[in-house]
Amino acid sequence: MAESWATLGVDLHLEPTGPGIRRGLSDALREAVRTGRLAPGTRLPSSRTLAADLGIARNTVADAYAGLVAEGWLTARQGSGTRVAERVVAPPAGASARRSREHARPAYDLRPGTPDLASFPRAQWLRAARRAVTAAPHEVFGYGDPRGRPELRTALAGYLARARGVRADPETLLVCGGVAHGLALLAGVLRARGVHTVAVESYGLHVHRDLLRTAGLRTVPLPLDDRGAVPGTLGGVGAVLLTPAHQFPTGVPLHPDRRAALLDWAHRTGGLILEDDYDGEFRYDRQPVGALQDLGPEHVVFLGTASKSLAPGLRLGWMALPPSFVGDVADSLASRTPGVLDQLTLARFLDSGDYDRHVRSARLRYRRRRDALVAALAERAPGVRVTGIAAGLHAVLQLPPGTEQQAVRAAAWHGLAVHGLSMFRHPDTAVAPRDALVVGYGTPPDHAWAGALDALCRALP
Amino acid sequence: MAESWATLGVDLHLEPTGPGIRRGLSDALREAVRTGRLAPGTRLPSSRTLAADLGIARNTVADAYAGLVAEGWLTARQGSGTRVAERVVAPPAGASARRSREHARPAYDLRPGTPDLASFPRAQWLRAARRAVTAAPHEVFGYGDPRGRPELRTALAGYLARARGVRADPETLLVCGGVAHGLALLAGVLRARGVHTVAVESYGLHVHRDLLRTAGLRTVPLPLDDRGAVPGTLGGVGAVLLTPAHQFPTGVPLHPDRRAALLDWAHRTGGLILEDDYDGEFRYDRQPVGALQDLGPEHVVFLGTASKSLAPGLRLGWMALPPSFVGDVADSLASRTPGVLDQLTLARFLDSGDYDRHVRSARLRYRRRRDALVAALAERAPGVRVTGIAAGLHAVLQLPPGTEQQAVRAAAWHGLAVHGLSMFRHPDTAVAPRDALVVGYGTPPDHAWAGALDALCRALP
Repeated sequence: MAESWATLGVDLHLEPTGPGIRRGLSDALREAVRTGRLAPGTRLPSSRTLAADLGIARNTVADAYAGLVAEGWLTARQGSGTRVAERVVAPPAGASARRSREHARPAYDLRPGTPDLASFPRAQWLRAARRAVTAAPHEVFGYGDPRGRPELRTALAGYLARARGVRADPETLLVCGGVAHGLALLAGVLRARGVHTVAVESYGLHVHRDLLRTAGLRTVPLPLDDRGAVPGTLGGVGAVLLTPAHQFPTGVPLHPDRRAALLDWAHRTGGLILEDDYDGEFRYDRQPVGALQDLGPEHVVFLGTASKSLAPGLRLGWMALPPSFVGDVADSLASRTPGVLDQLTLARFLDSGDYDRHVRSARLRYRRRRDALVAALAERAPGVRVTGIAAGLHAVLQLPPGTEQQAVRAAAWHGLAVHGLSMFRHPDTAVAPRDALVVGYGTPPDHAWAGALDALCRALP
Repeated sequence: MAESWATLGVDLHLEPTGPGIRRGLSDALREAVRTGRLAPGTRLPSSRTLAADLGIARNTVADAYAGLVAEGWLTARQGSGTRVAERVVAPPAGASARRSREHARPAYDLRPGTPDLASFPRAQWLRAARRAVTAAPHEVFGYGDPRGRPELRTALAGYLARARGVRADPETLLVCGGVAHGLALLAGVLRARGVHTVAVESYGLHVHRDLLRTAGLRTVPLPLDDRGAVPGTLGGVGAVLLTPAHQFPTGVPLHPDRRAALLDWAHRTGGLILEDDYDGEFRYDRQPVGALQDLGPEHVVFLGTASKSLAPGLRLGWMALPPSFVGDVADSLASRTPGVLDQLTLARFLDSGDYDRHVRSARLRYRRRRDALVAALAERAPGVRVTGIAAGLHAVLQLPPGTEQQAVRAAAWHGLAVHGLSMFRHPDTAVAPRDALVVGYGTPPDHAWAGALDALCRALP
């Protein structure tokens, strides 16, 4: 049996409250493993037991464990629980004690999902905000339409039709707080309509799987190959969540045959396709492939976000919905629409062309970063292959079998935070895991990119 | 049996989608009653049947029916369904056909809940936004702490301690989208912790009751008297939702004895008190009574909002939580925090004193409106008594028994939208309904206030 936390004798300096607790727990555990207070092979208490001991949410513990497993400090095997990894990588020669003490705060962050925050167009945004707030009629400050401001829905409909080939109508476009928020709303509506199971890609964001589960929906993984998700047996499935433009994280676009097969499934069964277009603006080798939604707007929800194109902190996203979903989703949005001032500002930003200009300049910056990454790897880590299309804010680095956790740990010793591909794997995936790193190149500011790349190359096998 | 909608032969010009459908349905039904196409006494289809006929959500129909019952066009009686009211009030002498055609868009709106939107301090807000965005470090544009920006939590903790006597710590203060949003999050957490029943005041917002029900919680009404909510039998109740500073809508503050009794219940049973402090800043006869939360911060969630003090469109609210709730509520907030720019702007607005100045000036304006309302009623409607303390953005006008629906209808004929007290009644309330109007004096811009008051006095019995 797993021991209780107290018996492990590890002193946790945790604030008693708050989401900082997840990081605090991760840091404390990592430090305990690193310093040997938790010996290799030690079995950790179950997440349920530890959560009860510490009086915190079980998910918090499970997330901390998952992160540490991905980083290679812990191992998790079916039937054997979570244990301290047998042989934690030795510090590379010359790594100073100072660096190891600091490593909970990495010098470089190449975890995917965040764009270059330093390039947020502050002056242009403020100008748009001033114009929007000055020109707005008084009524915009009221409760308003739960679908969002009509100015923004109109501006988005035009933009999405033009840039992403979405068949968008301001009446069926809803403003929300981002893809995760939209997905949470849709999950509630689907559950209320009797859906029990949603198919997801076998690699994806656990945050999305978690929020589907919170809404009472089971997720089943779809295999992935070089044409994207394989829509095999979808019996009993009421909806499919996909990233067609650029599969997250493997980076494969969904093949036209697969698109057709999925739409056929939706037509036949009345199932719903949830198209997560998180980074559809960013394609570097050719024009972006248009949205799947265009092929069947009655069966597809298109979800987009300003989190990658502008900044996650804005908390602005949008959904193009089949008409039959608009009423229910708007009802559940009611008290949770984003602030109207940001909505009006984004509408101005789109209408003025500032949004297009910003996306073009970001596309150029990310493309350069990606090119530099590919070039550096070709020179310094020839055993590592970059897969996935030239798009988005992350690349997948295929590693020799059995080296993923070691690479993640080595990166940590070089002051670099990076995620292994296993971090994104659906727990019910049948196929054997592949060893790879998911490298986000959006995060470092321009001046830190060369240093981050150097640290990455040192960490690779 | 109720007839199906088609048999009623009423032509509904409804957009097929969107939340406009509720208003569209209300307008179409009202017009059908007004023109006689739906004859007095006609039984309407059940909300379930009509929703199925129209292919819309049942709640949409139920809400439209409830609104029309409150306005007096329909009647709803246990066992007899919803019917067209027997004798719709005759138009007052001189009411033109033009006015009656227009009355779906009232000339004056005295429904409670919205502040004076014309006085939103645009220039000061933009100045604060410019300073906040210019000074912010890059990292603010990232995903950030789900509890909200630390700058805002710190500013709010100081303000709430000073202005509302809240025992607030930035670590346990969370930023959300308003009281309804906070309540929805808390409802989910309470349900997950095994709570089944929440006691609410017997008069209150049906939106709040609905979102508790959506989270799977049953609501039971607490009687109200001149000392506020009566905490009688609270067996099986896991939480109590209250408006202690200014009961909504009756306007009574919660008596100290009741506060003590409720806290005693919370201590004994581990129950949670949800303190909705929606308009606590606005008291006109004396200093505001401090928050109930101060008496037992481990048992009380304090919920506040910028929706009344500034504008609902900002979608900014806050919660001071018992430490044991912070983790779970923050987890469910994750993807739904308000935009960081609005958060930073509000922090500046609080720190600079702009918020206090705006509240002081708004307090003066609303106090004058309230005084004018009371004076006009004393002169022109001496049979009508104003009850509730001099506070907030609404007053309750006690009417002679049996005259509420008539007054609401008469107001509609005078181009005035106003709610009867029955609109806010919990359906399981045992005590007989009182006849009253709930008059919100926040909404009309200053120049329209005299006209709105005049229309109100004409409509009163």
